[in-house]
Amino acid sequence: MARPITLFTGQWADLPFEEVARLASGWGYDGLEIACWGDHLDPWRGAEDDAYIQSKRDVLEKYGLKVYAISNHLKGQAVCDDPIDQRHRDMLPDAIWGDGDPEGVRQRAAEEMKLTARTAARLGVDTVVGFTGSSIWKYVAMFPPVSEELIEAGYRDFADRWNPILDVFDEVGVRFAHEVHPSEIAYDYWTTVRTMEAIGHREAFGLNWDPSHFVWQDLDPVGFMWDFKDRIYHVDCKDAKRRVGNGRNGRLGSHLPWADPRRGWDFVSTGHGDVPWEDSFRMLNTIGYTGPISVEWEDAGMDRLVGAPEALEFVKRLAFDPPSAAFDAAFSTR
Amino acid sequence: MARPITLFTGQWADLPFEEVARLASGWGYDGLEIACWGDHLDPWRGAEDDAYIQSKRDVLEKYGLKVYAISNHLKGQAVCDDPIDQRHRDMLPDAIWGDGDPEGVRQRAAEEMKLTARTAARLGVDTVVGFTGSSIWKYVAMFPPVSEELIEAGYRDFADRWNPILDVFDEVGVRFAHEVHPSEIAYDYWTTVRTMEAIGHREAFGLNWDPSHFVWQDLDPVGFMWDFKDRIYHVDCKDAKRRVGNGRNGRLGSHLPWADPRRGWDFVSTGHGDVPWEDSFRMLNTIGYTGPISVEWEDAGMDRLVGAPEALEFVKRLAFDPPSAAFDAAFSTR
Amino acid sequence: MARPITLFTGQWADLPFEEVARLASGWGYDGLEIACWGDHLDPWRGAEDDAYIQSKRDVLEKYGLKVYAISNHLKGQAVCDDPIDQRHRDMLPDAIWGDGDPEGVRQRAAEEMKLTARTAARLGVDTVVGFTGSSIWKYVAMFPPVSEELIEAGYRDFADRWNPILDVFDEVGVRFAHEVHPSEIAYDYWTTVRTMEAIGHREAFGLNWDPSHFVWQDLDPVGFMWDFKDRIYHVDCKDAKRRVGNGRNGRLGSHLPWADPRRGWDFVSTGHGDVPWEDSFRMLNTIGYTGPISVEWEDAGMDRLVGAPEALEFVKRLAFDPPSAAFDAAFSTR
Amino acid sequence: MARPITLFTGQWADLPFEEVARLASGWGYDGLEIACWGDHLDPWRGAEDDAYIQSKRDVLEKYGLKVYAISNHLKGQAVCDDPIDQRHRDMLPDAIWGDGDPEGVRQRAAEEMKLTARTAARLGVDTVVGFTGSSIWKYVAMFPPVSEELIEAGYRDFADRWNPILDVFDEVGVRFAHEVHPSEIAYDYWTTVRTMEAIGHREAFGLNWDPSHFVWQDLDPVGFMWDFKDRIYHVDCKDAKRRVGNGRNGRLGSHLPWADPRRGWDFVSTGHGDVPWEDSFRMLNTIGYTGPISVEWEDAGMDRLVGAPEALEFVKRLAFDPPSAAFDAAFSTR
Amino acid sequence: MARPITLFTGQWADLPFEEVARLASGWGYDGLEIACWGDHLDPWRGAEDDAYIQSKRDVLEKYGLKVYAISNHLKGQAVCDDPIDQRHRDMLPDAIWGDGDPEGVRQRAAEEMKLTARTAARLGVDTVVGFTGSSIWKYVAMFPPVSEELIEAGYRDFADRWNPILDVFDEVGVRFAHEVHPSEIAYDYWTTVRTMEAIGHREAFGLNWDPSHFVWQDLDPVGFMWDFKDRIYHVDCKDAKRRVGNGRNGRLGSHLPWADPRRGWDFVSTGHGDVPWEDSFRMLNTIGYTGPISVEWEDAGMDRLVGAPEALEFVKRLAFDPPSAAFDAAFSTR
Amino acid sequence: MARPITLFTGQWADLPFEEVARLASGWGYDGLEIACWGDHLDPWRGAEDDAYIQSKRDVLEKYGLKVYAISNHLKGQAVCDDPIDQRHRDMLPDAIWGDGDPEGVRQRAAEEMKLTARTAARLGVDTVVGFTGSSIWKYVAMFPPVSEELIEAGYRDFADRWNPILDVFDEVGVRFAHEVHPSEIAYDYWTTVRTMEAIGHREAFGLNWDPSHFVWQDLDPVGFMWDFKDRIYHVDCKDAKRRVGNGRNGRLGSHLPWADPRRGWDFVSTGHGDVPWEDSFRMLNTIGYTGPISVEWEDAGMDRLVGAPEALEFVKRLAFDPPSAAFDAAFSTR
Repeated sequence: MARPITLFTGQWADLPFEEVARLASGWGYDGLEIACWGDHLDPWRGAEDDAYIQSKRDVLEKYGLKVYAISNHLKGQAVCDDPIDQRHRDMLPDAIWGDGDPEGVRQRAAEEMKLTARTAARLGVDTVVGFTGSSIWKYVAMFPPVSEELIEAGYRDFADRWNPILDVFDEVGVRFAHEVHPSEIAYDYWTTVRTMEAIGHREAFGLNWDPSHFVWQDLDPVGFMWDFKDRIYHVDCKDAKRRVGNGRNGRLGSHLPWADPRRGWDFVSTGHGDVPWEDSFRMLNTIGYTGPISVEWEDAGMDRLVGAPEALEFVKRLAFDPPSAAFDAAFSTR
Repeated sequence: MARPITLFTGQWADLPFEEVARLASGWGYDGLEIACWGDHLDPWRGAEDDAYIQSKRDVLEKYGLKVYAISNHLKGQAVCDDPIDQRHRDMLPDAIWGDGDPEGVRQRAAEEMKLTARTAARLGVDTVVGFTGSSIWKYVAMFPPVSEELIEAGYRDFADRWNPILDVFDEVGVRFAHEVHPSEIAYDYWTTVRTMEAIGHREAFGLNWDPSHFVWQDLDPVGFMWDFKDRIYHVDCKDAKRRVGNGRNGRLGSHLPWADPRRGWDFVSTGHGDVPWEDSFRMLNTIGYTGPISVEWEDAGMDRLVGAPEALEFVKRLAFDPPSAAFDAAFSTR
Repeated sequence: MARPITLFTGQWADLPFEEVARLASGWGYDGLEIACWGDHLDPWRGAEDDAYIQSKRDVLEKYGLKVYAISNHLKGQAVCDDPIDQRHRDMLPDAIWGDGDPEGVRQRAAEEMKLTARTAARLGVDTVVGFTGSSIWKYVAMFPPVSEELIEAGYRDFADRWNPILDVFDEVGVRFAHEVHPSEIAYDYWTTVRTMEAIGHREAFGLNWDPSHFVWQDLDPVGFMWDFKDRIYHVDCKDAKRRVGNGRNGRLGSHLPWADPRRGWDFVSTGHGDVPWEDSFRMLNTIGYTGPISVEWEDAGMDRLVGAPEALEFVKRLAFDPPSAAFDAAFSTR
Repeated sequence: MARPITLFTGQWADLPFEEVARLASGWGYDGLEIACWGDHLDPWRGAEDDAYIQSKRDVLEKYGLKVYAISNHLKGQAVCDDPIDQRHRDMLPDAIWGDGDPEGVRQRAAEEMKLTARTAARLGVDTVVGFTGSSIWKYVAMFPPVSEELIEAGYRDFADRWNPILDVFDEVGVRFAHEVHPSEIAYDYWTTVRTMEAIGHREAFGLNWDPSHFVWQDLDPVGFMWDFKDRIYHVDCKDAKRRVGNGRNGRLGSHLPWADPRRGWDFVSTGHGDVPWEDSFRMLNTIGYTGPISVEWEDAGMDRLVGAPEALEFVKRLAFDPPSAAFDAAFSTR
Repeated sequence: MARPITLFTGQWADLPFEEVARLASGWGYDGLEIACWGDHLDPWRGAEDDAYIQSKRDVLEKYGLKVYAISNHLKGQAVCDDPIDQRHRDMLPDAIWGDGDPEGVRQRAAEEMKLTARTAARLGVDTVVGFTGSSIWKYVAMFPPVSEELIEAGYRDFADRWNPILDVFDEVGVRFAHEVHPSEIAYDYWTTVRTMEAIGHREAFGLNWDPSHFVWQDLDPVGFMWDFKDRIYHVDCKDAKRRVGNGRNGRLGSHLPWADPRRGWDFVSTGHGDVPWEDSFRMLNTIGYTGPISVEWEDAGMDRLVGAPEALEFVKRLAFDPPSAAFDAAFSTR
Repeated sequence: MARPITLFTGQWADLPFEEVARLASGWGYDGLEIACWGDHLDPWRGAEDDAYIQSKRDVLEKYGLKVYAISNHLKGQAVCDDPIDQRHRDMLPDAIWGDGDPEGVRQRAAEEMKLTARTAARLGVDTVVGFTGSSIWKYVAMFPPVSEELIEAGYRDFADRWNPILDVFDEVGVRFAHEVHPSEIAYDYWTTVRTMEAIGHREAFGLNWDPSHFVWQDLDPVGFMWDFKDRIYHVDCKDAKRRVGNGRNGRLGSHLPWADPRRGWDFVSTGHGDVPWEDSFRMLNTIGYTGPISVEWEDAGMDRLVGAPEALEFVKRLAFDPPSAAFDAAFSTR
């Protein structure tokens, strides 16, 4: 079978799209998960401009690459977030930021997510990966005391803002794959359960399985796939390493920057952390996932030019296909 | 020696102060850590009104209780917090909330903290326990990307707001004991280190050692005392239990209410959780802490009338005094 | 509220029923979970003979005891078992064993289970606790290779044999509470899932939660309650201790007798093993279980006259009621 | 030195013997551990027919392979098993199964084991690997209660059935290497101790060290070699992976098929599981084992054509020879 | 049955013997394990002076106490030690120290051990507990490189020095119970095996089981009893707590004094540490140990007047007798 | 950047220096950490003889190797040790041993350490790696009771003997890098803290980070670098494997030789043990260590000719450089 292995371009968006294509192709990747930032892909153009779409296809073809999914984490994040502040200013284009009025930012971001679905459809891709943002993430410590009504309102706000977006996804036959991640509406197992209820389990809303956020929260990324097997729409390979255990490094990271060794956990290149990769890939076989496996490079302690090809080799070695027959069939006299 | 064991009145503030005194006395507590909310203690009156102070002393005397520290977590929280929202509205008195304009709330809360120091002094108490709030707690997930400048600004905001308050503490000879706690400026080991730097290690600012917040972050509450031994100004006994390990319950609590068994951790009555209490009390002996040991009741799965006397027995049994001589002195022929 | 605490009489059936009642009453138990063997309770008489039922009631009343459930593990076991052999001969009465022909034994055992339901109804009890037996347990090692058809047939055999029994349970308004246990059709999490499917999730068939069998299989008895919350019909307190870890004691017990220290695990008196009792009792509160908590004494290393009263004290201390209000309500200004 | 690395042909018996020889030779194996099923080796012919033996030797020679041991697990299993049922029917040849009468099956299987010894001798091989079967395995759960007499009888039955077989082994100078394995008379440490006693520690009966069955039972395969160092007659490399830890997957496997991710453990290709391979190979050096290291392929989640050559590379890398001198000899001035 | 519980007087030797008897009796101890230092017991007088022996008996009788064993750790230590230095000077009486010449000290200490056996016999006691000392303990780090000849010589030195002492033990019918302990010839499992070989497994030399030294070395004190079941001559209850885990506290204790929280482990009062006491007492039942259980008080962080009675209660609660019948006998119809 | 990777010649000193250079060069090492024993480097000649120094340089140049540090563990060990005995005799040259009088040995060893500094300077090297010895290591078990005065005297003895040596180091601009190691004055975290105090934190005295001694003591080698970041003068890669866990193998090694599988831990080739190498190399990046990474070969179970090149590959793969930019910079719109 051999599932395609793609490179997510989000962490390479400081480079021109073609340069990323050239690099990925040279390392042996099968395709790209294209990010909707930098010059990689602009949903405002892609949703309407056939020539623009064709220009992206040309680059891919030139380098022998395919595309199975596109991503728009940065704008998805702004759809529900509260507060909207400098952090959003730093990652949003001027057109979305506008005058910075929070509600305006949210609505323009929502609009872009609809266009992202349309762009995906034009590109012949059935999956958009991304974030949702959350108006209640900030209550995670539960102090000052937070009422159940406030929490409930947060899930409702999410549904109110995303249902119209998902209507467009349904219209154009594309699915949204939310990445379960702290700072989002669904960041662990039970918040994913609650999120699915909030959205009525509609099929347009599925999951991007990225195990890096699971391991430092003590969640099981393998069992998660089994329990949400009909909603695993995309796979991102990112790894994380726990560095607690000395009594001083804490689970929450101490507001320290990536790669600071005092953090209780950190993102690391695929295969360098605590994700049980082999069991994960075996579970992908079990649930019959046939989509791309995408390498998302995030490691503040390693050069990406070293890490990206190494991660590809790692994934290729462990993401093997299942066999066609059971070993104990050979014992049979039948 | 026998350090006094007190009951923190914060979780009993729905009851009249005298009723709490009666209960605590009946169970055998030595004193109270009086909360500055409910009708327990009003800093605006206490800072100025001798008769008010005397009325509190009369209640204590009637029930044979002492006071070694007073607490004002709820107003301390509002000094630095951002955003200020419904959660603060629900726990602040009208006079502090005012029109709800965030900056005004913060300044009125700061004013109350100064008065709390004055009240403590009048009451003959040298320690105020509480929270600081934080303008950067909400960035804990580090997405959207947060710059080191933003983090730095958060610590500076804390110093700018608290230094004037601590000046009053110094003026009246009282110390502030910050409770290291998620949602505060210092919530783990390294943020405590950074907070102490931000405030220039001034003596007026010390710590309320409450181990419950340590265990679910994988921090060592015992070693923490050793490293900050000259800043342990007060001790609160609260316990927490980790309930991760099934792959579905996460470290961050899933926005679920207290006592929900799907939370990855929960507060429980002292002695029912994962805090290494005996090693902790032995460390208190080692660092020469001679202040009160205060029981802070928080357990959403147990009735407080059952738990408070049980916790007292638990602490009494383990918080034993050190011996006067070494056991191997008995081997000596000298 | 105070749930009643009962003593299961199965391990005391060498003593006359009245003697067990006297002992349990003296220790302070609230009632008995009466076993259908020894002279404790005979379903063949109980199903038809009002005077017999009254005689049991008289004993209970004399000692101030209640009954909430009766048990018939030994005969339930024989309903599905294969092979039927000397082990069954040793624990079955002559009337059930008959000529020892396996199919005859199974059918007579099934008949007794129906009568057990009728006896429960006459006694005013809505729950029968017991085992199911299993025709496929012996395939647990999966060698020689076992086909999925054989496994499937085992579940079907279970359904075919128990559905008619459960029809009688439905008829008389009594529920069967199966104890998840090795050697039974449902012995762990996934076999319980499969068993429920086999029986069409009919309400007559629920579970007796006994955590002792969970801990040595590395199963989580607490989460199990959450997942099967509508089928927890009865609670038996038995404990187990893992003794693996020296590389020589194995999980499977090495065919060694109880109390042999070379076994990798053993049954021990409640509170002496690895069951997370407090979390378990808190979960019972969460799922709203209001039935009896029954102490099932099995500890080959301790005298039962010492253990039974000690276990009662242990359960009383930890099976506390939930509170009526949240602790952080006391922070509210509302 | 370089111990030979062989491939066990048992899981390849659906392929013609020569095809397996061709594959193994191509991957670089040094030899084969030939299974007595499929068309690989027939003990009824091998014990008497020199030309048949020569034909096997010719194939080996053609592909540059050696043989150090032959295996007959399937027939050994039937010697003691009770019950004998469909599972045996599926793996036994018609001549052994006959009319399926259990005692007849057992005796014909015993006869084949004697012939297997004779075949080994003719082939110039001193070791036969295999299983024993067990009449008491089915009592592993110890419910219904099993008497020590029944267990004792099981070991005696084993000795009674195997001693005559081992007499033939002694006669022809061949040793039997029993694979410690659930469903056999010896399946863990203490049952191996008991089995050795039952057979009077006779030298003809030794062990095939296969660590895969140890890890999921929490047994130490390395220390086992030390304790039974004079009875390690053969080494099979098979790996197993524990998948417990989510509270739902149990140690006993839930009667689920291989590769189902809900099983609490599974067989996996050598190097993909929890066996401490390097410590194991170092222990082989320590006890002076000089026989073959045989790769036994069992992984229901990986294609055997991928796994077999990968396992060979894995073993080659870790099964290194010991050095001739100590490192601290270089510090000596002598 | 009820094994006697005694108090070891070694850590109380700064008090007069009668005072210790009075205290122990008041707490409820059954007897004393009398130390041969302080004024408690002098072997030079006891070996010859009947009146002296009677005076000790009188004190015991006055307080209703028995004696089952006497102890002489301090002089036993000096028999083999090398170097002999200030530490020995501090704990040895002048008569043994003499001019401090090491070989003279060793020989005088050996002489006292012989007299200790004679004193025990006169007192009607069959066990002497103590240490052996070791000439090779100092090589524990194995740097500078230590030859196997040097190690071998150390065990031989032990045998040469202790065999003549043990001859006197045999002569008077008393056994020596060596406490396995760092700084002795036998300090862990394998050194105990080697020590037994060195002394030819003679019966006069057995073991004092004290689990405190096992837990910080990661040894299993329970399995140790099983493996040396015929040499467990006495039991001392002392506990130890591991305090590693913060990455800074080390297993070797950092040359820090007892009770310093930076030590990686420490002695603590029985029941306050990591010894698996209940499994240990159950194992004592299994191996049929019927001697005294002696409490050896060593806890530099707790007052001994608090700890000694508490330890007695702890031991009484867990050192229960085995039952006379199996629980599943109640299932039998026989 | 690429830090140089060197081979420590100490475990190869039975071979001529040039032969070691030839081997190291052939495997691809960048340089040598030259040991001052065998014929590798003689400080008595090197401190004075330019031609001798040049001859060493010639060999290095011939094989394209550099030198960044030299080592003299064996003589450093003798500076403080007590007792001085056969072990020292076996590893010291005749000139240092002399008549074997301990104090004379110590002084001659101290003299050689001064000359080692001078030799380093002449060779153009700024670091000498080595041991200090210790007069108090033998008190590690703390029995017989050791007074704090004795411990204190040990640290003072160290300072008294090493300060004059370090004066020469300062004079010639070379630093001493002590290897934290059992049997030395600093062997774990807290003894390193105490050692630094004893020597007044003088810059001439730093550390050779060798993690192998950390892991079996349960120390964190990664955090150690952070805490002593300004004193990490050299890095030696040696690995260790814990083999405790069966209850019989102890932490202290049982006086058994290297490679004996009953030891609780053993030295193994880099990458075969429990050292967290990747986190360690990342920490070296964080603290800005730019010196050599030296492979110190010690594995009594593997041939050094196999292990040395394998270790080089292992280190090359994991000791990667840090990146120049953060991954989330690619999210920025700035």
